[in-house]
Amino acid sequence: MSAPNALDEIAGLLERLRSRRPLVHCLTNQVVKNFTANALLAIGAAPAMVEHPEEAAEFAAMADAVLVNLGTLDDCQMAAIRSALPSARKARKPWVLDPVAVGPLGVRTRFAREILAYQPALIRGNASEIIALAGLEGRGRGVDSGDSTAGALDAARQLACAIHGAVLVTGPTDYSTDGTAVIACSNGDALLTRVTGVGCAQGAIAAACAVVSDSPLQAATAAAVLMGIAGERAAAYCQRPGSFQIALLDALDALDGAAIRAQGRLA
Amino acid sequence: MSAPNALDEIAGLLERLRSRRPLVHCLTNQVVKNFTANALLAIGAAPAMVEHPEEAAEFAAMADAVLVNLGTLDDCQMAAIRSALPSARKARKPWVLDPVAVGPLGVRTRFAREILAYQPALIRGNASEIIALAGLEGRGRGVDSGDSTAGALDAARQLACAIHGAVLVTGPTDYSTDGTAVIACSNGDALLTRVTGVGCAQGAIAAACAVVSDSPLQAATAAAVLMGIAGERAAAYCQRPGSFQIALLDALDALDGAAIRAQGRLA
Amino acid sequence: MSAPNALDEIAGLLERLRSRRPLVHCLTNQVVKNFTANALLAIGAAPAMVEHPEEAAEFAAMADAVLVNLGTLDDCQMAAIRSALPSARKARKPWVLDPVAVGPLGVRTRFAREILAYQPALIRGNASEIIALAGLEGRGRGVDSGDSTAGALDAARQLACAIHGAVLVTGPTDYSTDGTAVIACSNGDALLTRVTGVGCAQGAIAAACAVVSDSPLQAATAAAVLMGIAGERAAAYCQRPGSFQIALLDALDALDGAAIRAQGRLA
Repeated sequence: MSAPNALDEIAGLLERLRSRRPLVHCLTNQVVKNFTANALLAIGAAPAMVEHPEEAAEFAAMADAVLVNLGTLDDCQMAAIRSALPSARKARKPWVLDPVAVGPLGVRTRFAREILAYQPALIRGNASEIIALAGLEGRGRGVDSGDSTAGALDAARQLACAIHGAVLVTGPTDYSTDGTAVIACSNGDALLTRVTGVGCAQGAIAAACAVVSDSPLQAATAAAVLMGIAGERAAAYCQRPGSFQIALLDALDALDGAAIRAQGRLA
Repeated sequence: MSAPNALDEIAGLLERLRSRRPLVHCLTNQVVKNFTANALLAIGAAPAMVEHPEEAAEFAAMADAVLVNLGTLDDCQMAAIRSALPSARKARKPWVLDPVAVGPLGVRTRFAREILAYQPALIRGNASEIIALAGLEGRGRGVDSGDSTAGALDAARQLACAIHGAVLVTGPTDYSTDGTAVIACSNGDALLTRVTGVGCAQGAIAAACAVVSDSPLQAATAAAVLMGIAGERAAAYCQRPGSFQIALLDALDALDGAAIRAQGRLA
Repeated sequence: MSAPNALDEIAGLLERLRSRRPLVHCLTNQVVKNFTANALLAIGAAPAMVEHPEEAAEFAAMADAVLVNLGTLDDCQMAAIRSALPSARKARKPWVLDPVAVGPLGVRTRFAREILAYQPALIRGNASEIIALAGLEGRGRGVDSGDSTAGALDAARQLACAIHGAVLVTGPTDYSTDGTAVIACSNGDALLTRVTGVGCAQGAIAAACAVVSDSPLQAATAAAVLMGIAGERAAAYCQRPGSFQIALLDALDALDGAAIRAQGRLA
């Protein structure tokens, strides 16, 4: 998709999202549950967190999409995820994987590899996480905090092909790929890194986008653009992280097609 | 209680609450723990969350009231609740049940039926939840998202009689009943549905109210009026959900008898 | 350290903290995880919460410091803490103990006694908690909510000697001691008690300070001064608890050496 078309498409996606109000089943980390729920509500989706293994299976089939974020993975949550994902797959609901801290930590790295078999529509992570996750798929690379964008892009393409979906690599510039096309989004603001859970909330928004998108690549790109523009707008009038966090929720709520077309920066 | 008297009574209840500063033991869901604690502090109560089964029993007897909210129920929390409720009952402390998502999800629906035996002073839920919970008590009704107010009122009256307490059914208009009287509260604002955990916080405030109320019905009505007026006041100067969430806490803190008498809308 | 020197030292510590950006592994309670993470980010540190027992050991060795807060202790978290602390000790990483509600609750009181063997660099608690914890170490005192400052200071000195570290007793005036010297900090504002998790966030900030401090006593004093001044500055323009909570994060971000020298009140 060329950039102007892509922004039009994302504007249309946001309209559909608000009209459909997708219910996102979030199996996410304990630090960000509240902020994630409020970010989903702000963008126009509906959140729910259900973690009993038996109920997680019931609920994954009822929800429109599932988010799996490994930030505070423990044995109970692993059981819930192992129960939810087959149910989501059976009900043909898209799911998003956010492989937080995969690489240096053993349990979640093995677990992320295991659940890739359930084929997420989309994976969202930073360069190190994406490289580590792809490494598990046969690349054998190590994880370094200064992982280059080039390395991350190779890993992202490989992962996207493996899951037949899309990968969003976040950083100063965000890259989305379906294994063939690569789209760069340069929206955003440094303040987004001063608030906990912005990336995690972006993963949840990506899951909501996947419900109403034409393709996983479009959902990944939309998540980058929506959070990036909201961050710029919030930073325009709040320069400190406490008030910025609140302004970010307000900005997600205020986003519209005009803002996307005027401020979106894709290449 | 007639409407003007009822508002005077609620103004008096709020004064007693702030003077007594009831300690509310919250066994609640993982999404809203922070917001619930801050809402209790804002209204003038004191929150505490203790979930180890052994300690939950100790603490339920020390606290002034207990809140049980089933939003993210898991096996550990079930054990804590099963330990806390007999202790609360023995110490004659009131408890409030918030049957989040009871109906479509099996584990919590069976569990909610089980713990009704410990006789909550008050149940707070939306129409679907109240109908589903009452159905379990012998009505056999299904759960539909468009459950009519009339159906919910029947269910609420039946439940209130069964627990010898009160039920608060929340929605565009909130209804409280003790099985005989029914009071309608039309305070509130649509923004209250755009922030996660407002209803959950209202359940916690209802538990605080139950400590200083003349009756469960009064506590239920007070919780509806307090959150409803605070929502209207917050919405008067914040129209976006991020800033509204913060303004709501400020408005709970700022509530006083004059605001209750001027803005309360009961029928 | 005399008061003016002490403030200069704390100003220097804050500069080092922001340059080093210590990673604090927080094993903390479910109510405050988000606020704690945002407070660490605001002051200039980096938060992470990893609770799987296997990963908690891996991560405690990678992080710069560990915070153990017992607020919502359960069996799973006990396993994570028992796994993390030996690893932190082995890697010579400082850790901070926040003994929330130790005294009236049995499981955490026994557990706090047990993990004292891993010698925290610093303990942060209110008077009742510090007296109860010291009582377990041989003083045999009961816990009363009106525990006198004098009693708490005796307990704090005894605990500081036992751990060869420092103790911060928080209250209207905060006291830090290494068992010999006692420093009183009178910064702060009553609004700090109207927001949940401020003390818990202070414990996390103390852990970050311990990474770059000359001594545990300096870290404890710095945590008192930094949160106290930030609280005063936030209260200067927000008088309600919702907006104060946000202003507090902004004020932590805005703190600098000039503010510390101008507003710090140590004796």
